[in-house]
Amino acid sequence: MDDITFAVLGTGGIGRRALEMSQHKDALTPVAACDRHGVAFDFDGLDVDELLAATEGNIDNEVATDGGAATAEGGVKQHGEDKGVVASSQARPSEDPIQESIDHGDRIDAVLLALPNYEHDFIPRTADRFAEGGYSGVMIDVLKRSRVIDMLDDRSDEFAEAGITFICGAGATPGLLTSAAALAAQSFVEVTDVDIHWGVGLKSGYEDNRGTVREDIAHLPEYDIETARTLSDEEIEAIIDDHDGVIEFEDMEHADDVLLERAGVCDAADVTVGGILDARNDEKPTTTTVRVTGTTFDGETATNTFQLGDETSMEANVNGPALGYLKAGVRRNRAGEYGVLGPAELMPGF
Amino acid sequence: MDDITFAVLGTGGIGRRALEMSQHKDALTPVAACDRHGVAFDFDGLDVDELLAATEGNIDNEVATDGGAATAEGGVKQHGEDKGVVASSQARPSEDPIQESIDHGDRIDAVLLALPNYEHDFIPRTADRFAEGGYSGVMIDVLKRSRVIDMLDDRSDEFAEAGITFICGAGATPGLLTSAAALAAQSFVEVTDVDIHWGVGLKSGYEDNRGTVREDIAHLPEYDIETARTLSDEEIEAIIDDHDGVIEFEDMEHADDVLLERAGVCDAADVTVGGILDARNDEKPTTTTVRVTGTTFDGETATNTFQLGDETSMEANVNGPALGYLKAGVRRNRAGEYGVLGPAELMPGF
Repeated sequence: MDDITFAVLGTGGIGRRALEMSQHKDALTPVAACDRHGVAFDFDGLDVDELLAATEGNIDNEVATDGGAATAEGGVKQHGEDKGVVASSQARPSEDPIQESIDHGDRIDAVLLALPNYEHDFIPRTADRFAEGGYSGVMIDVLKRSRVIDMLDDRSDEFAEAGITFICGAGATPGLLTSAAALAAQSFVEVTDVDIHWGVGLKSGYEDNRGTVREDIAHLPEYDIETARTLSDEEIEAIIDDHDGVIEFEDMEHADDVLLERAGVCDAADVTVGGILDARNDEKPTTTTVRVTGTTFDGETATNTFQLGDETSMEANVNGPALGYLKAGVRRNRAGEYGVLGPAELMPGF
Repeated sequence: MDDITFAVLGTGGIGRRALEMSQHKDALTPVAACDRHGVAFDFDGLDVDELLAATEGNIDNEVATDGGAATAEGGVKQHGEDKGVVASSQARPSEDPIQESIDHGDRIDAVLLALPNYEHDFIPRTADRFAEGGYSGVMIDVLKRSRVIDMLDDRSDEFAEAGITFICGAGATPGLLTSAAALAAQSFVEVTDVDIHWGVGLKSGYEDNRGTVREDIAHLPEYDIETARTLSDEEIEAIIDDHDGVIEFEDMEHADDVLLERAGVCDAADVTVGGILDARNDEKPTTTTVRVTGTTFDGETATNTFQLGDETSMEANVNGPALGYLKAGVRRNRAGEYGVLGPAELMPGF
């Protein structure tokens, strides 16, 4: 487990943070970074600092939907060959970055799908391409939407046949907080209620996480994935203005519910996910908390609680677990366990 | 994963609670219960209610050290054939219950070693007997002492060759709380401090958990495993009296430290375990809390926290996880992953 090579698909906020964080993990070597415009491969390990400097200001949403990238100064670059990862000296343009990644798949232990804002079936379809292309390793996503899990589960036999271990929903929520709920459930013989409530302060991190903000807005009652994708940056700013910078979310469609049901912890209907986003302050508007209520074998009712320190950023809580699950997934894959695994079934490595 | 057979070795508090709790788990069928006096086998599933009634008042420590059993009325039975599990109509005396379990090993997916108070190398030596006897399944313990982990790790190749997946330290602490610490660590790139502080109220559960109390007393500065084992029940009562019923423990040798180091989370020296036992109240004297402090990739210092509800009993927090890890271990074993695994590497099933 001391030498894991991985690729990031997408060089927006999540992809870039994964590259950055991997510098702290001796066991992980990033060997490929791709977006819709280009590819960077180096099987001795990418120069992460150069890649981060070149892609600074990338907007994850734009990388996902049209590949546009903002400059470090905040201005949006014009469309052209230096967009996205191609702005790095290690990269080159590519007509089909995904196919190129598949072609090099025998040298890539794990592929992190850092593509939060494509169509909701984009990740399943991308996985199909890898399976059909002969890839046999780990694929991991940080997707949020419950409906995608079923689409992945439907492919379980296909993944197993290909030798792919697919880790789904492996960020913060779903991900770290799903695992925390599954762990907290262990005191109980019946879980009656899982309540996940997050707080995110995103002032200085706003530029780098526009895609995530857009994805969150899609959870508001007035919007959905399709309508949120068509919003301009100005319209998103206006929505944030309308809420005085602080947007509360209730009953979000986060896959924690189906992932916990899938693991047998409770019914999906017993899981509630909500949160508060403050786009004008870095301080979290509320402490991210998971509460798991259940009945013990000896008939008591109690609540176990997991809380993230307010000083941990969303990026730390998404990307740390993602790399942890990636490590755990490679371990499973090397042991010959294939198919679809969720965070409630998998203890992330460190 | 819908049909797991398991054996309990030891019918004291932990073994009995494991049997009881397994009634809430459809996937788990207890097929063997053994102690030093006898064996009960039924591969269609033991009659747990009858077994629990027959062994009520068993003192886990005495089962472990001399097999004596108290009656339901609290009086200690005389030595004889109806001691321990043999008091059940499903059981019969045995000269070598462990060998009999090994002989039936091909029908037992997992063996729970519910033997907290033997010599500290008893569990490793018992595992040797299973490996040498051709057992290939899961073995799981709820041991506490750090020093035992190394003894098990030394046997990793032996276990792998035999096809044994050994899950060590899979109760509450180490176990559930170790996993919680490993999970909480995911926000950080460096963990500087893990603090585990437990509270146990043990008035009504006292009789059933004398072995655990004895084990705890061995952690007091004035005692060790050997001297604590020689204490009479009266001497233990006197120690509790001396503390007015409430005993505080600091810097306990709980294997959370080596298990977290083994998983790469932090140095063993950065882990502190302490707790408060109130032997005169069922209410916990303090809320069981895990605090994990670390540095994020973006340079912040924060503390993530996991707390068990005060209404969860020690038994719920030890035996729930033990069965959860047992399930997860069987999954690994069936996937062909052998050797030694700790709770920081394994998400318990539910």
